[in-house]
Amino acid sequence: MSAAVDPLFRRIAFVGIGLIGSSLARAVRERGLAKEIVISTRSPATLERARELGLGDDYHLDAATAVADAELVVMCVPLGAYEGVAQAIKPGLKEGTIVTDVGSAKASVMAAVGRHLPDGVPFVPGHPVAGTEHSGPDAGFASLFQDRWCVLTPAADCNPTAVSRVAALWAACGSRVEMMDAAHHDKVLAITSHLPHLIAYTIVGTATDLEADDHAEVIKYSAGGFRDFTRIAGSDPIMWRDIFLNNKESVLEMLQRFTEDLTALQRAIRRDEGDTLESLFRRTRAVRLGVVEAGQAGSFDPQEPKPD
Amino acid sequence: MSAAVDPLFRRIAFVGIGLIGSSLARAVRERGLAKEIVISTRSPATLERARELGLGDDYHLDAATAVADAELVVMCVPLGAYEGVAQAIKPGLKEGTIVTDVGSAKASVMAAVGRHLPDGVPFVPGHPVAGTEHSGPDAGFASLFQDRWCVLTPAADCNPTAVSRVAALWAACGSRVEMMDAAHHDKVLAITSHLPHLIAYTIVGTATDLEADDHAEVIKYSAGGFRDFTRIAGSDPIMWRDIFLNNKESVLEMLQRFTEDLTALQRAIRRDEGDTLESLFRRTRAVRLGVVEAGQAGSFDPQEPKPD
Repeated sequence: MSAAVDPLFRRIAFVGIGLIGSSLARAVRERGLAKEIVISTRSPATLERARELGLGDDYHLDAATAVADAELVVMCVPLGAYEGVAQAIKPGLKEGTIVTDVGSAKASVMAAVGRHLPDGVPFVPGHPVAGTEHSGPDAGFASLFQDRWCVLTPAADCNPTAVSRVAALWAACGSRVEMMDAAHHDKVLAITSHLPHLIAYTIVGTATDLEADDHAEVIKYSAGGFRDFTRIAGSDPIMWRDIFLNNKESVLEMLQRFTEDLTALQRAIRRDEGDTLESLFRRTRAVRLGVVEAGQAGSFDPQEPKPD
Repeated sequence: MSAAVDPLFRRIAFVGIGLIGSSLARAVRERGLAKEIVISTRSPATLERARELGLGDDYHLDAATAVADAELVVMCVPLGAYEGVAQAIKPGLKEGTIVTDVGSAKASVMAAVGRHLPDGVPFVPGHPVAGTEHSGPDAGFASLFQDRWCVLTPAADCNPTAVSRVAALWAACGSRVEMMDAAHHDKVLAITSHLPHLIAYTIVGTATDLEADDHAEVIKYSAGGFRDFTRIAGSDPIMWRDIFLNNKESVLEMLQRFTEDLTALQRAIRRDEGDTLESLFRRTRAVRLGVVEAGQAGSFDPQEPKPD
């Protein structure tokens, strides 16, 4: 991509500059989607690192200063920090500024952010369904969103121009953009993302609670399947703590379904019911083919070697 | 690797030629580890495919014929077929022939195979801790075992020369070879491989049981974590059915521990106990670092694209 296209936004302010924020900033820069990029984070060390990486044009510890004069504000902080950020940026927001975010739960976000924004400042909640287990500004890369879905969940009365402009930004970063009701988003993501993470965290925890000798062997022999769970369970602790707390109802419902199914499988193993196992395994193999066919099979782990 | 080294075995017979068998046959061929490779499988179509792929020198549907005159017999069939294979090859086995296998559970294998082999035919149970979710002779590749562990669990009275020769074969294929007690192997693999697979199969099943509309979206948005589970749950159904039935006690024990831990996490979410979640997630992230440091973080999925 060249920077020769017209920028979509004059000035984009990022509040938070971790994996997702820094990936989006890189994509915006690389593709010339904004004339100016402003970076803001509460952590002086992270801000300094963002400056060293050259992620933006301006750098601020104070979020209200950062958003002043921005055409678009992108909140890229853990969900638990949303309400504080919304309050903090409020004094800096001018009428017409668009606010969006990248959080993994949407109903709670709309409640937490929406009520703090001034009139005339549309909020377009967004969720790029992409990521790696790495975090921080160094972990980002511009192609993270390429061919990935980005779900927008604007309220029914949200300014349509604001929605279109945010959609255009994600599309320009390579994403496929989809509109969805926030509650529905939260349910779908509970099963496709939140429950898988919860389970991965759990099994890795179970393994580390084994006696010390076994623990070392768990790492040694992780190539048998466990390593895939450790990758997921290596994801950012604060971000994921906040996701579970902010999508509690849907996560608990999916977890209940999962537990029932796991109990049924446990019973089948105990009773040597091979047919029950085999028929499930044939069904799940077909799902894998669906994922591969849908072009969603890839992994973005830059550390993964390839077979020769 | 060149084929100029002295072959370790004059004639190796493979009984079963799926992902693991065909990978080992390819590695043996590529590295010149046997003068002759004999391929045997009950399926005429699979045997024909192995022949098209040029995996061996001789091809037989009858296992007893295949193992006659072999110096080493490698059983590469699902665990449920072991006893039948052991009975079938018995008439063809000569004194001094070494029998080994590649199965993922070892105590049950030693019981099922050991009692069928004639005196003077040492059985060296083996388990290469490597694989992909693909199966069949086309799925194999010679570097599958490179830098992966291979665990051997010979009985205390097993012929030490036979054990050394099997160990040398795996080492020559790039594996790191480890000796272990069969019961201990089964416990370690229950947590590092069997339980992860069971859980992956379960969650993919749970997702497919959702209403039809949601089901399509589960595949569409699988990049959020679910796709990693579909990959594991895409593994061979028969092979995995047999693993669970053949390592029942260890799998059920690890499953019980996992369920307790999951219930505790469910309770923490319901009660908004963020600290409990965060402290677990920090612990599991450290485990991931251990896996990466141990050089076991890679994935062998040839379909995985890399970020640019």
